Amino acid sequence: MTTNYSYKELYNFAKKIFLAIGCSDQDAIQATNTLLSADLRGVDSHGIARLIGYVRLWESKRVNPKPNITVVHETPSTAVVDGDKGLGLVVGPAAMKIAMEKAKNVGTGWVAVKNSNHYGIAGYHSMMALEEDMIGFSFTNASPLVAPTFGKERMLGTNPISVAIPAKNEPPFVADMATTTAANGKLEILQRKNEQAPLGWVQDKEGNPSTDPGAVKDGGALLPLGGSPKNAGHKGYILGSVVDILSGVLSGANYGPWVPPFVSFLPVSDNPVGEGLGHFFGAMRVDAFRPKEDFLKHMDQWIGRFRVTESINNEKKVKIPGDPERMFEKERKENGIPLLKPVVDSLKNLSEKFDVDLPNPN
Amino acid sequence: MTTNYSYKELYNFAKKIFLAIGCSDQDAIQATNTLLSADLRGVDSHGIARLIGYVRLWESKRVNPKPNITVVHETPSTAVVDGDKGLGLVVGPAAMKIAMEKAKNVGTGWVAVKNSNHYGIAGYHSMMALEEDMIGFSFTNASPLVAPTFGKERMLGTNPISVAIPAKNEPPFVADMATTTAANGKLEILQRKNEQAPLGWVQDKEGNPSTDPGAVKDGGALLPLGGSPKNAGHKGYILGSVVDILSGVLSGANYGPWVPPFVSFLPVSDNPVGEGLGHFFGAMRVDAFRPKEDFLKHMDQWIGRFRVTESINNEKKVKIPGDPERMFEKERKENGIPLLKPVVDSLKNLSEKFDVDLPNPN
Repeated sequence: MTTNYSYKELYNFAKKIFLAIGCSDQDAIQATNTLLSADLRGVDSHGIARLIGYVRLWESKRVNPKPNITVVHETPSTAVVDGDKGLGLVVGPAAMKIAMEKAKNVGTGWVAVKNSNHYGIAGYHSMMALEEDMIGFSFTNASPLVAPTFGKERMLGTNPISVAIPAKNEPPFVADMATTTAANGKLEILQRKNEQAPLGWVQDKEGNPSTDPGAVKDGGALLPLGGSPKNAGHKGYILGSVVDILSGVLSGANYGPWVPPFVSFLPVSDNPVGEGLGHFFGAMRVDAFRPKEDFLKHMDQWIGRFRVTESINNEKKVKIPGDPERMFEKERKENGIPLLKPVVDSLKNLSEKFDVDLPNPN
Repeated sequence: MTTNYSYKELYNFAKKIFLAIGCSDQDAIQATNTLLSADLRGVDSHGIARLIGYVRLWESKRVNPKPNITVVHETPSTAVVDGDKGLGLVVGPAAMKIAMEKAKNVGTGWVAVKNSNHYGIAGYHSMMALEEDMIGFSFTNASPLVAPTFGKERMLGTNPISVAIPAKNEPPFVADMATTTAANGKLEILQRKNEQAPLGWVQDKEGNPSTDPGAVKDGGALLPLGGSPKNAGHKGYILGSVVDILSGVLSGANYGPWVPPFVSFLPVSDNPVGEGLGHFFGAMRVDAFRPKEDFLKHMDQWIGRFRVTESINNEKKVKIPGDPERMFEKERKENGIPLLKPVVDSLKNLSEKFDVDLPNPN
């Protein structure tokens, strides 16, 4: 059902496509690094499967391949960045670097971004902070697909939260999660397998609880983390809203139902309330709080203690956030990245369109 | 089943008790303001019902009524505060003020606190930022009662997240939520009514899903937001962990299973990994990102748009975070605060112990 490709083959292909749409060499490398980090980490929905989606955005003039990314407002610990319609894959890392630079100077840095678009996996950006022994934060708003508690309209995106925290001998703690019960990609997998979704993932277009994984495509909505009101779905709605406000309202981007959808065949609002899609990034130097060695030692102790939590059954141990993605990364660097046939077909399409050689399977 | 007391009567009583245990006049006022904000906002579990709990902590020498609250480490945008075993009700606001002062100077301020204890409702502290048109953040770790996904040990507290965001003509957006499906107080209410809890709230001591609201008292655990693994309970575990690390590891307080429990009859760890309990506060000036008027106008638009979300049925509209608490506050300021008999009994106990007149019911 899948064909394996080496990371290197896919990397070279994606980079050539980004060059073909007009990116500079430097930006093509950055976009490829960001995009393919998803494939390596096992988040297949956000990786090379979306390359064709970015190209479609470019075709519909919603992506500027040569953006002039600028700071439009700042203080010693904050900035607002205008992404100039650049690829979020490129704008995100540029903004995160500004946050880290500010953290070097005054302890922390916080950067809101407007006029951007989809930025790949949230975790790529937060993890940049780890290189400098900083805690990284990454948030973004996204295509409206989620209904707030008691609502049937799609008002929010899956608005992820990512927090990356360095440790010493242990691997870092890397949280990277949508603020919904399930991401859209999981529904697509169930549909392909012809299986039902658990209650609490989606509702139909009338707002009834549903187990149909196709409900969202039929006008229904994803449910916020928690699911139904009695299982505290309002908390997922609250979290998604905070992400939306930090990413959209604070930056001057669109927010809520006005966020421009990633899929280019859906219309962009005629009455936007801001510019493009928004992100929010943060970086905190750990030694802005306590000596670095103390912090890292205690993070090791935190991680070590949680790893040995007494488990309900011995086959499933308590995991540290970031563990599953690290397993994927190790395995896929060695054995390659498995792509489904529709994904390979989308690469063929791009190969023909831009006259770039198809990657060779492993 | 309940007796109504005016806010003023309860206020005077609580203040006298804080004075009786040795607080300065200023600290007694602050502690009372923080504590009773919970009763006003309808969070009955965190208000005057806990006054006797704070007194017990003082009796067991775990609260210092005359703390010397100091900054032990800082940068222009960060600080670590040593609470000197003071009441969290007093230490929290002191730390939040430091965060706000730093935000005035460099755009944002972030303060981690160690050597504190229970700080009342998270929202009291985050809402302080609203007075200065700042966005406020408030987090704390808490008594270990929550099992991480796949675990049966109690490793985390209900570790709340609060974010307060100012608006212009609309009331502010105030998120204040435990990172568990249900707070302990909700289980106590079900127990009194002899009702079962929905699946996803608790597990028994073997880690089996349970609907027994007494399961936590019998050695079971609260479940992280999301509940079971298939409903993404791991995301609640992730969120609670981030709160624990920012509050405990970053500050030098205890974390995870080492957090000293609020109930004084449970032992404090013999091998603490830090000092007391930890909090984490943040303040961001909105005009550190964009002109204040622009931000406030768009927050009004965000709130206004979400209020008119098409709802599933007309009896339940989509709410803005903070709406339910504001309704309570309005109602209770007018009609008084209803206290259950066990709470009134605890006030009688304190009245006799400290020779302070009992409040008069309405």
